[in-house]
Order: sequence, then structure tokens, then C-alpha cells
Amino acid sequence: MKITAIREIAIPLKSSLRNAVFDFSEMTTSVVAVVTDVIRDGKPVAGFAFNSTGRYACGTQMRERFIPRILRADPESLLDETGQNIDPAKILPLVMKGEKPGGHSERSVGIGTIEVALWDAVAKIAGKPLYQVLAERFNGGKVPTEVSCYVGGGWYFPGQTHQDLQDEMKRHMDAGYTKLKMKVGGAPLAEDMKRIEAVLKVVGDGSNVAVDANGKFEREEALAYAKAMAPYKLRWFEEPCDPLDFELLAEVASIYEPPLGSGENLYSTMDVQNLVTFGGMRADRDIIQVDPPQAYGITMLSRTLDMLAKRGWKRSSFFPHGGNQMTLANVAGFGLGGCESYPGVFGVFGGFGDDAVVKNGMLQLSRRPGIGFEAQSALYPLMRQLAEG
Amino acid sequence: MKITAIREIAIPLKSSLRNAVFDFSEMTTSVVAVVTDVIRDGKPVAGFAFNSTGRYACGTQMRERFIPRILRADPESLLDETGQNIDPAKILPLVMKGEKPGGHSERSVGIGTIEVALWDAVAKIAGKPLYQVLAERFNGGKVPTEVSCYVGGGWYFPGQTHQDLQDEMKRHMDAGYTKLKMKVGGAPLAEDMKRIEAVLKVVGDGSNVAVDANGKFEREEALAYAKAMAPYKLRWFEEPCDPLDFELLAEVASIYEPPLGSGENLYSTMDVQNLVTFGGMRADRDIIQVDPPQAYGITMLSRTLDMLAKRGWKRSSFFPHGGNQMTLANVAGFGLGGCESYPGVFGVFGGFGDDAVVKNGMLQLSRRPGIGFEAQSALYPLMRQLAEG
Repeated sequence: MKITAIREIAIPLKSSLRNAVFDFSEMTTSVVAVVTDVIRDGKPVAGFAFNSTGRYACGTQMRERFIPRILRADPESLLDETGQNIDPAKILPLVMKGEKPGGHSERSVGIGTIEVALWDAVAKIAGKPLYQVLAERFNGGKVPTEVSCYVGGGWYFPGQTHQDLQDEMKRHMDAGYTKLKMKVGGAPLAEDMKRIEAVLKVVGDGSNVAVDANGKFEREEALAYAKAMAPYKLRWFEEPCDPLDFELLAEVASIYEPPLGSGENLYSTMDVQNLVTFGGMRADRDIIQVDPPQAYGITMLSRTLDMLAKRGWKRSSFFPHGGNQMTLANVAGFGLGGCESYPGVFGVFGGFGDDAVVKNGMLQLSRRPGIGFEAQSALYPLMRQLAEG
Repeated sequence: MKITAIREIAIPLKSSLRNAVFDFSEMTTSVVAVVTDVIRDGKPVAGFAFNSTGRYACGTQMRERFIPRILRADPESLLDETGQNIDPAKILPLVMKGEKPGGHSERSVGIGTIEVALWDAVAKIAGKPLYQVLAERFNGGKVPTEVSCYVGGGWYFPGQTHQDLQDEMKRHMDAGYTKLKMKVGGAPLAEDMKRIEAVLKVVGDGSNVAVDANGKFEREEALAYAKAMAPYKLRWFEEPCDPLDFELLAEVASIYEPPLGSGENLYSTMDVQNLVTFGGMRADRDIIQVDPPQAYGITMLSRTLDMLAKRGWKRSSFFPHGGNQMTLANVAGFGLGGCESYPGVFGVFGGFGDDAVVKNGMLQLSRRPGIGFEAQSALYPLMRQLAEG
């Protein structure tokens, strides 16, 4: 059994979204196909992934560095202990040959996307949903049928009224969601507090609403928002400051009692270790949000979770970034806190299988083998075409 | 006045070097030309840079993201207060548009290399060596005629004897160097201590010798090396552990009295802030080694130095990574601790002008305008060709 090809294509996201610091107008995403010589239903099994959203496509790095390093390896050396499937953990030492330590981002995105696609192939070869493969390997075989899922929404739009924002949140609740996230930092503080209050009128308790500042605030503003929002007892306050400013995050934590969230802009186990060691993060309430295909993939996620467990963090504190099937498989497979969802945004890359159903805030899992991209009718044809070369 | 083109070419390093964790066999480097419409000696002024060594070429990122963002800008908006030259500090907000916070590496390399090439053009337009432009802007006009320079050597080679290592160090001293650096971690501890003792026999005092572990050691080994080497009172112990493992570095610092060095694998001001805040680094003796073209360039170096000054660090503690003309210009211009030199390694990318002279450990500065690549006969034709398109 062997990998016969690894292919990448860059797709523009074509999104007009805006958060407090950033717009997605130029954003591209790498879609990857890992093709094997294993035949299922008359066709070679192929695994797929894309590098979530928010970091650019990185096909050149893949073609010039990571893909040749994998394809040069003796195929036997990549097999698991059964000899009947590939062990994705054997990829990391290969792709890291010739790479200096530290400085993980962009490299971690290219490698992580390939690694997640390989897991998709591995699960299809095993004939199981990826979350089941992961649950058997990393979570004592606990295979769930549904996972907690919240909506990330509440973006800024020109001309938006509080009524518009409330209507958006009502739509999400009508669709079966109970917990929501909204942006802060794109308007002045007083206006942002009014936006939060408008949303609270619709969703009730603050524990149903998280807010996301996308790393925007300098010290004064981060502390001012923390003080102003503390009485709402929100579900979490995400990325109050520069994602690497652990000193300032610790200062925010010292005056902000409710939960904080961070990690979507961290790309390695060591960066997360620094976050929880120096960032004032509290294992009894705070939230960690690393995005696996952007951070070396699923094997590295398992190592990050091991590191966190040693430092007293529960898996229920981990909510991976990225509202997509890959995140869903990781949340269900590792038994993480929950999944996010972005209905109607990020084009073909947002969302889950076309038949996905959310009830009382719980997303029901399908039993399709692999990650389950096959049920995404807008995305899958593009992946299938890539696999066919 | 405007930038008319920014071009990049990737050049293989073709090096057989090896340190404790890494070989350079696949390594490539981006050479960049920033071409302007300013005419000097009948030709358009062009600035050059390359992304030092150790991180891969990144032309795709430049062509798809950073270069179009610069060339789309109104040329007037890039001028300095005189209107007679370009202000490189105005580039950063442009290239960072559409980039998420955090996760700096690779992006920081592409941006930094372009930014340093732009400084080369700016200095040529001003008709001054770049170090003089930098000294006038960032160091109160203190323009030196020479800078302290040490040799980075002592690599591992198959079949190498202690005599070979001593002969190498003698050659460096005969060439005018007084301070040397050697690798550790590529041999067992006992053998590495014998190598250090062999070198000390040639160069005398431990204060003339730094050692570099290139981030190799896990906890046990890092502490064992620290204990074993402490009695030698070496000039510095560089990258004892993973460059992002600030907790372990602080533990090493707690038991290792002589100076430590780190920073060549950190790519942003915020990462360096974390290093000095959480890594146990001591402003009275330790060494910081960020490589400017790999870390967003010279404007960002000035911000990193400002951040360090606020935290009690002197510029003499800063020894930028990269034994090349760019490092030399930064060391001389900002008044940093010193420069490294790699005689005979890294192919056309290593070393200084062909006429560079080292006396008593001091490298004499030329008065050529710009960075001074024109005096590197093996490298410059390649740059000139790139500028001519």
C-alpha cells in the first residue's frame, strides 16, 4: 500500500467578511488530495483537506519541500503496526527534515493540511468515520453520535442596525443553535456594549454568548473592554490582544473573572505551552482554540492535548477554530468541548455535510467514512477533480 | 520617485553543512531586487537583499501577496518627509493588510527581505552607506569605521579530529579574528567537552569562545550541558533548547551563570518580548540574535530594540544572526554588539565585500553606498541580472 500522489490547488475565498482587524478579500485556501493505491468501490482511495480559513494557500511550500519528502520515503516505512494502513504520525519526522526549530506558522499550515488529508484517506481505508478512528486511537474508543456546536456570527456590516444583529441571532436559534459568538472591537466600546446587550435580549443569559476581538486591542482598550464586559458574564472573551502578547493576556485575566479564549493564531504545541504557562490562562474556565490543519495536523493536536493534560487542562476546554468537517471530526474523535459553525460564510469552505442537522445546540454526526467531505456538494467536486489529476 | 519593480529569484544554497539538528542540503534563499526610477550613473537605482540562511525561499508569498500590495500603493504615499526618498517604515502597514496577527515566520521572511532591499535602494539614493543612514536615523548619528566581528565555525564533519578543529580555529585567528563560535550537541556530551577543551587550548580564555546547540536539547540534556560547560565561563551558550521553550530556557538560566544567547529562530518583536519576559534572560549578560531580513526587516528591528530598551536591554547585547553585509550594516548603523562571520561557508551568500579586512577582531567598514553587495563579486552579478529583469 502506498501514497501515489499528493496534489494541491489554491482557491480564492471570495469573502467580503470583516472582523475587528482583518478582511478576507484576498484570502486563498489550499485544497489537498492525498491519493493512495488502495481501491474502494473501483476507485483509488483519496483523502482530502483544506487549510481552514485565515491563513493563505501554501502550495509552493508543499510542492518544493513537504510533498517530495513524503513521496521519497519507502512506502513500507509509513505503515502502521497492522501493515494494512498508513500511520500519519510517521509523516512529521519526514516533513520536518531540513526545517529549523521554531517559527512554525505557514510551514505548519502546509504540513497540517497534508497530514489531515492523509487521515481522511486512512479512515476511508479503514471504512470508518475519521472521528471513530480518532476515538479508538486517542479517546478510549468513546464514539459519540452528536457534538456541541455553536454559531460564529455577529460580523460587522455597513449600515447594520441592532435589529439586523438580533434578526441574525434569531435565525441561528431557529436553526437549532443555542450558543452564539459575535465580534467586538470593530465599533467604539459604547456601541459594542449596546450590540452585546441587543444580542443578550434575544439569547437570554450571557453564558450563551461569546465575543471575539480577533487580537485587536492594545493594553488600554483590552482592559477597558474587559472591565465593561465582565458584568455580562459572557461564555468567553476571545483574543482580547495580540495572540503572542502573553504578558498582556495575563493582565487581562487578572481583572476579568469570566472565561477567556485564545489559540487560533498559535501554530505549535510549544506556542500553546507558552500560552498556558505565561498567559495567565485558567484551566478551570478558559478556552483553547488551535486549528489542527493550520498547526501541523491531528498527530500534533494529540501531542498538544497531552501537554495540556499534564498541565491540568481538560479536553472539554478545547474548541478548535474552523467551522468545518475537519474540526467536527477532531471534536467528536478526541472528545473536545465543541465545534463552531459559520452558516452561509466562507463560501464552499464553511459548514458541514449538506444533510447536517443541529438540534438543541447539538450537531448530529453522520456515519460516512473519512472526514465526510463527500456530503458537501459545493466543495466535493473540486476535491474529486484534484484527486483525478 | 517610485518603485518600478520588485523581483525575486530562489537560489539553492548547495551546502553540505550540518549542525546538531539540521542540514542545509535542500536549503534555498530568495534574492530580491527593488528597482526604482531614480537614475544614478546612468542606471536606475536598485536595492538588494536575500533572506539570510536557514529559512527557505519565499518568492510565491512575495509575488502573490506582498509585492502587489506595495506596487498598488500611490508612490507619493511612500515618500519620507523630504519627498526626496522612500520611507521604508511605510511599507509594513501595506504588506500586513490582509494578514492575521501572530504566526510570524515565513511571512516575516518574505516581508523582511523586501524591506531590507528597499533600505539598500534608499541608502543608494541618498548616496551613503546604509549603516550611515541607519546611524543618522536610529543612533544619534554615531557612524563607526569598524565593528566587532566573530567567526561562527566549529561545525561537525565526518572523520574530524580535535587537531582538525584546532587547525580551523588557528586559521580564523590568523585571519584576524579573536572571538569564535563552535557547535555543540552533534556529539555525545563527553566528546563535546573534549572538543571545547581542544578549542580553548588554541584560543585561550573561555570568554573568546561561544557555543551553539541550535535548539537541539530536551530538558535533561540542556541541563547536563549547562552544568558541564559552566566552569569554562564561555562567551555565550546559544539556543540550548527549542527556541520557543521559554520555560526550559528560564530553568537553564537559573543554573547557568555565564551568558546565554537566543533569538535567531524568533521572527517578531512580540516573540522577543516573550523571550526576555518569560525566558529567564538576563539583561546584564545574555545575548539576543534576531536576523532582521527574516523578521520583517530593519524598521521592525528598530521597534524590537525600542521594546528591549524599555525592558533594560542595551544595544550591545544584540548580535544579529547572519554573517553577511546586511547584518554588518545593522550592527554598524544601530550600534549593536557585533557581527558574525562564516568564512568559506554558505556559498555566495556568506561573507562580506571581497576587500573586507578583519584586524584584532574588528571588521573595517567600507564607504560604498547602500548595503555594499557591489563588492561581493560572486553574489553581485546575480543581483544585477535580477534588477535588469
